Amino acid sequence: MALDAWLTLLAAAQQVTTRPWLAALKRCGSIEALNAAPPRLLLEHGVPPEAIAELKTPDTSVLDPWREWLAGANRALVTFGSAAYPRRLAEIPDAPLALWVEGTDLELLAAPQLAIVGSRSPTTSGRDTAEQFARYLSERGLTVTSGLATGIDGASHRGALPALGSTVAVLGCGIDVVFPRVHAQLARDIAARGLLVAEYAPGVQPQKYFFPQRNRIIAGLSIGTLVVEATRRSGSLITAEHAMDFGREVFAIPGSIHNPLARGCHYLIRQGAKLVEEAGDILVELAPQLRAEGIDLQPAPSPVDSTTSTPLTSEPSYQNLLKTMDFSPVPIAELAARTNLTPAEVSSMLLVLELEGLVEALPGGRYSRLGNKK
Amino acid sequence: MALDAWLTLLAAAQQVTTRPWLAALKRCGSIEALNAAPPRLLLEHGVPPEAIAELKTPDTSVLDPWREWLAGANRALVTFGSAAYPRRLAEIPDAPLALWVEGTDLELLAAPQLAIVGSRSPTTSGRDTAEQFARYLSERGLTVTSGLATGIDGASHRGALPALGSTVAVLGCGIDVVFPRVHAQLARDIAARGLLVAEYAPGVQPQKYFFPQRNRIIAGLSIGTLVVEATRRSGSLITAEHAMDFGREVFAIPGSIHNPLARGCHYLIRQGAKLVEEAGDILVELAPQLRAEGIDLQPAPSPVDSTTSTPLTSEPSYQNLLKTMDFSPVPIAELAARTNLTPAEVSSMLLVLELEGLVEALPGGRYSRLGNKK
Repeated sequence: MALDAWLTLLAAAQQVTTRPWLAALKRCGSIEALNAAPPRLLLEHGVPPEAIAELKTPDTSVLDPWREWLAGANRALVTFGSAAYPRRLAEIPDAPLALWVEGTDLELLAAPQLAIVGSRSPTTSGRDTAEQFARYLSERGLTVTSGLATGIDGASHRGALPALGSTVAVLGCGIDVVFPRVHAQLARDIAARGLLVAEYAPGVQPQKYFFPQRNRIIAGLSIGTLVVEATRRSGSLITAEHAMDFGREVFAIPGSIHNPLARGCHYLIRQGAKLVEEAGDILVELAPQLRAEGIDLQPAPSPVDSTTSTPLTSEPSYQNLLKTMDFSPVPIAELAARTNLTPAEVSSMLLVLELEGLVEALPGGRYSRLGNKK
Repeated sequence: MALDAWLTLLAAAQQVTTRPWLAALKRCGSIEALNAAPPRLLLEHGVPPEAIAELKTPDTSVLDPWREWLAGANRALVTFGSAAYPRRLAEIPDAPLALWVEGTDLELLAAPQLAIVGSRSPTTSGRDTAEQFARYLSERGLTVTSGLATGIDGASHRGALPALGSTVAVLGCGIDVVFPRVHAQLARDIAARGLLVAEYAPGVQPQKYFFPQRNRIIAGLSIGTLVVEATRRSGSLITAEHAMDFGREVFAIPGSIHNPLARGCHYLIRQGAKLVEEAGDILVELAPQLRAEGIDLQPAPSPVDSTTSTPLTSEPSYQNLLKTMDFSPVPIAELAARTNLTPAEVSSMLLVLELEGLVEALPGGRYSRLGNKK
């Protein structure tokens, strides 16, 4: 049966890059055919001889605790090529062969995600920013993905967990291993309301070199990656560089030149990451892609819930657009003509106004202004 | 005589954009020919009729106090097309017809300049940054140009004035008018050791609309413009946008997203300004242009005089480059091969190392390492 074949493969594949296995799997067409393939074919795809030996003469005693773990509630093994495997993650060169997941809503794995990562020892302000940005984005329907580390990761999970989009935590150890210990309760909360994800099988203890590998999954699952505070040597930069390599958006929050935790973000901005001052900036940037993928974000639950004192919509350009709008529907092209902006610009700005509850999207690409809630 | 002809022109040209006059001057070939030109020719170039009338029937009483001012020590009128007129300023579309200048070293007007501008009400940290960056750059031979305003402008002048490159202040009023009053002593110090510059003739009181006009001169005189702290509505953004329009480099210092004085800088970075963390970053960026123009900067007067706790040269890339260098001369191409960097990258890094007194430039594009001064 397929599960047994997958578990046998995962036991053999534990210490190698996934690329040779993915290539062989594609060639063989099914997991059963892969397991039955002649060693020569696997060798041709670059699978190391020791791993082939393990595949051919499996130590089945390893698999029993894995089966036991999978028998628990709200747990699954999501394998490469299956319907539940996230499309975005499948695109990356070294995609995981399978993900161990635990949570009440396994669909979160395929939800539109934004990664928020950063220092394990942030400033108080950085921690607050991560939590506020995560809440703002989750309230609007994006799922916030991070690495369950202390500092920025934890704050991001906490901000997003209670809201609409919820949160995904990608572990750097076995799915059932509690690390870091200080986040034991947070991990339980995420299992209950969000989703825990690991490439590593039950029982696998964290290793230092797991974390950079794990970071490719955080970047790979996400439409974009936001770095909140990070030094120049931070692992968060690895996540951001993975995101750049995968052609995903990277966002970074600037800070004082006297704050060493801003240096990693400044480095990324120089490399082409988008400088972000408020959470709405990220939506504006992602809007075209979200629309293209048919992803509908939700309006803000409260009239004004911006993360900073001056919401983007108070900018003169937004106020001018609002002034040219009617309380009856107007097409985007007409608004572009009235404001001397391009339709693409108007479209981005309308999304922000919509999320602030100031305008309403109507069928046929038309928009109308909403009454002032004050 | 030419001076009289120029003064007559300046009296007639006081309220108009300089472009029609510059076009007419080019057509006529000399200031005397311009003054004698038929009104029809001036009209064809867009000079307004009232200005032509003033040119043809000058009120010569205006000119006496101007001549009187010019008779003082260390003063000059630098006219468009003359040898003393700065080449870089002559390139801009609306170049001033003439500059009134006062200072002991009139050559400063043509020196390689970096503009440092920003808020009139900066944070203490912003003020310190402006002063430190100005001192660092002036010590290495760049002249710091600013607008004599309170806040960032004043701090930049103060930082640069005592050092090698000194400072140029471009006024938004007549050359002899003290504004702002609180900078009366600073203006005297600049007249004594730097250079005061104004497009406006002696006696002209400051007008609100003079300041944006003045800002084009600050940007036009300079190889690049650095904005230290500025709100989104700051006049400094006008200076920076002039610099961008003129094809000059723009640099901006990031700050906390909670600091409204960082918003203008963040806006500029999003528009393509270079994010700057330390003063050395500016030299690295300008190095190719400075070399191309044959401008030699000076090594640091003290072994380590960086404006931040971590000098750029402590970065691993710089340390790696240093390690591959010999105490005997090595060509740049060889160093590029040794470090797997491009010759342009190596060249920029060598400039920084040279300015920190760690390497020595030798004839033939070769470099050698200097002994440790510790």
